Amino acid sequence: MSCDVGLYGLAVMGQNFALNMASHGFKVCVGNRSPSKVELTVKRAKDEGDLPIVGSADPEDFCKQLSKPRKIIILVMAGKPVDDMIATLSQYLEEGDVIVDGGNEWFHNTLRRAKELEPKGIHFIGMGISGGEEGARNGPSLMPGGPKPAYDLLEPIITKCAAQVNDGPCTGYIGPVGSGNYVKMIHNGIEYGDMQLIAEVYDIMRSVLKLSNKEMAEVFEEWNKSPLASYLIEITAKILAKEDDVTGEGYVIDYILDKSGMKGTGRWTIQEAAERSVAAPTMAASLDSRYISARKDERVKASGLLKGPEMTAAEIPIHKGQLLDDLKWALWASKVCSYAQGLSTIKSCSDDMNWDINLSECVRMWKGGCIIRAAVLQKIQDAYARDKNLPSLLLDPVIAGDLNNCTAGWRRAVVVAIGYGIATPALSASLNYFDSYRRESLPANLTQAQRDFFGGHTYERTDKEGVFHTAWTDAHKSIGDINERKAGEV
Amino acid sequence: MSCDVGLYGLAVMGQNFALNMASHGFKVCVGNRSPSKVELTVKRAKDEGDLPIVGSADPEDFCKQLSKPRKIIILVMAGKPVDDMIATLSQYLEEGDVIVDGGNEWFHNTLRRAKELEPKGIHFIGMGISGGEEGARNGPSLMPGGPKPAYDLLEPIITKCAAQVNDGPCTGYIGPVGSGNYVKMIHNGIEYGDMQLIAEVYDIMRSVLKLSNKEMAEVFEEWNKSPLASYLIEITAKILAKEDDVTGEGYVIDYILDKSGMKGTGRWTIQEAAERSVAAPTMAASLDSRYISARKDERVKASGLLKGPEMTAAEIPIHKGQLLDDLKWALWASKVCSYAQGLSTIKSCSDDMNWDINLSECVRMWKGGCIIRAAVLQKIQDAYARDKNLPSLLLDPVIAGDLNNCTAGWRRAVVVAIGYGIATPALSASLNYFDSYRRESLPANLTQAQRDFFGGHTYERTDKEGVFHTAWTDAHKSIGDINERKAGEV
Repeated sequence: MSCDVGLYGLAVMGQNFALNMASHGFKVCVGNRSPSKVELTVKRAKDEGDLPIVGSADPEDFCKQLSKPRKIIILVMAGKPVDDMIATLSQYLEEGDVIVDGGNEWFHNTLRRAKELEPKGIHFIGMGISGGEEGARNGPSLMPGGPKPAYDLLEPIITKCAAQVNDGPCTGYIGPVGSGNYVKMIHNGIEYGDMQLIAEVYDIMRSVLKLSNKEMAEVFEEWNKSPLASYLIEITAKILAKEDDVTGEGYVIDYILDKSGMKGTGRWTIQEAAERSVAAPTMAASLDSRYISARKDERVKASGLLKGPEMTAAEIPIHKGQLLDDLKWALWASKVCSYAQGLSTIKSCSDDMNWDINLSECVRMWKGGCIIRAAVLQKIQDAYARDKNLPSLLLDPVIAGDLNNCTAGWRRAVVVAIGYGIATPALSASLNYFDSYRRESLPANLTQAQRDFFGGHTYERTDKEGVFHTAWTDAHKSIGDINERKAGEV
Repeated sequence: MSCDVGLYGLAVMGQNFALNMASHGFKVCVGNRSPSKVELTVKRAKDEGDLPIVGSADPEDFCKQLSKPRKIIILVMAGKPVDDMIATLSQYLEEGDVIVDGGNEWFHNTLRRAKELEPKGIHFIGMGISGGEEGARNGPSLMPGGPKPAYDLLEPIITKCAAQVNDGPCTGYIGPVGSGNYVKMIHNGIEYGDMQLIAEVYDIMRSVLKLSNKEMAEVFEEWNKSPLASYLIEITAKILAKEDDVTGEGYVIDYILDKSGMKGTGRWTIQEAAERSVAAPTMAASLDSRYISARKDERVKASGLLKGPEMTAAEIPIHKGQLLDDLKWALWASKVCSYAQGLSTIKSCSDDMNWDINLSECVRMWKGGCIIRAAVLQKIQDAYARDKNLPSLLLDPVIAGDLNNCTAGWRRAVVVAIGYGIATPALSASLNYFDSYRRESLPANLTQAQRDFFGGHTYERTDKEGVFHTAWTDAHKSIGDINERKAGEV
């Protein structure tokens, strides 16, 4: 019994990805802590067309069933379960075998594990998988990072199982170990941004324009045929049109509690962007919005204490067609700014770690299978193909031109939201990012002056080279010289 | 030779704090790796009125000169130098002695060090110090966290050396070890917010109202007599009025390069807020603004590619007096939102760690000595005194009433900035925070619907208890049940 690949961990993602590989003719051995999932998966394989999946009795048997060098994908909970899994399996593995962790793992854990496996000669790959269960079954986006020889062993399998788009499979070699998890983490941060931006636009449609769910569904359906076309816009249309089958009255969306959950990757994205000194305000606003949404009890209290705008609809005239058009371009431009933040974060880490990630390739892999697949990705792929060292997506002339065409509507949309007291943290954060980034002279000269005033941090000048300190007051004159000022404040 | 207290590490902060303690009659032994700083400090002590400071020859001698139980404050660079310092000193210390780290240290390092010193019976305190060199010399804000018995030994010294305000010294017992560093970290995050908010207001004054530096200095001077009164407003007035003595022409502010530096604490604040699931958008916007400011070369390029608004001044009529008044209240309200974010972060960590931090006390300690001292702190202190378990500052009725009075001007100010293309990331982030927090129903219902659609994450309903999942499409019906959906996406 010699299987092409092993998959251990048969929760929803694992089951579906095993079936996916088997559908492409690879003989898959599956394993799981509780045997019932193994039986279930084998049964599903039979039901879905006698797919070549065999179950294993235990980890040792699992490893024995694999052809060498063994290729094992593990899909268990991130963190300790992955360490335990690796410890168990590696007893039965030998030099040259490959373990692929397909979970949403913190990249530093992946780096550590690769190091721990090194003495045994076992290769370790951290591979981000996006697409939910549907993607796992029919073609996800696969973001593997690890040693190139190990990737080469995996390549024939993943290039077939990944989603396929115009220019190939939504996978490829991202870079050294850790880079795959990193790219997946940023993918998720971008996903948070996309979701929050759509939520804000929906909020304006329902709260300012008072559109019905059906009307909103139609708008999103229409937008899905525009440059906004994307998986998340598509499902938003479907969601808004979905009638409630619990009560049999109205639409599901109106019964769903406005408390949003989250998992680790969104949080990590923000922490990492800060670590790399990259501004990521749109993604941060999305995360913050989830945090605030979770404090429902506080919000209910606050709604009785804090007042919205006194302006009335009559004072801010709204033209439905115009506002919808403005929202459309506000959404597009904000989304591009959010992608720029995410890609700059990857670039910054790639530079720090010498990963040499090809951002064009990276974006290409997101064009199918994954949650953030969107028409705009082609433009972004092209931008980085034109210049792989682009310091920011916003510096690509084509992207810049498109953004310039959006700004008037973008500004109007945010102004309307402020006037009506509808929070648009992500749309606003993107616009402020745009307005900050395009500014030759920011007011940071005042910030530097303050830092020099209270902490003697010194500053640079626009007219002369060097480092300067001003004796702002007489008190300053009596205290030390510039070189003494290193252990100061902030 | 028996000294009351020892201070090791004689960079600017250390020298000044040693002189401060000596000025209050405490006999201080000072030490430093390079002896020249020891000599300099002893000389300054002599020059500033024969203050009781003695120098030490080496760490052993330093420890010998201290009365028992020894109290040693170290002021060296955060990180490894602190570990080295502790290792060196602790050789000569005994049970019951106290080491106080006065640097800007990551609180987890402080927790670790306290644990490492435990077997030796040496107490460890992490004490945040704010006020720059001037504060260190004449009265800083001191935020100590550590074992209560150790704090009690330190109390007579620090209560005299701290800044003194209406209701006592700007120090007090914050809580267990780590809590002092944490409160100082958040203090710095708030400081970042205050500085960025002032910078944005300055930017609108100079770029939209075209005020001269002198006019702006006058406005800030005037504001310093209003509810905005604060150290940072005060020094902003002085900075703007300062003529350039390098060229002898114009004002310094116009020669300072708009690239702002930063140290670790601002970054940590944002990472910690995310860790605690607390929204901190104003502080985050401030950090991001520094990151963007640092990318000057990119901004210069971007300024040629990305376009500002096409609206003209004629289209958005500006009334100088009105806009200045709007900016004033926008600044006040935004600042309060930023404090709310910082204090919520402290509360969240205090709850997680069982630190039982008294936020009213904490705010009281910021009223003098430190960089964020401000009139508004009295109101905030009072709010937490009324209800020490306030989930958010914004839920205090007095604060809420004040904010409500600001909102009209706040909205107008941000709208003008958007119209003129002036980035106001922090003012906008605060307004969006306010508008999110006061909203009973956020659009997070759509976010939850999307998560359930692509990842089967389930949702709660407004009309029924329990956890729900919708079969959004026919495809959803064929895939697993709710309980299988734990290992999904995002």
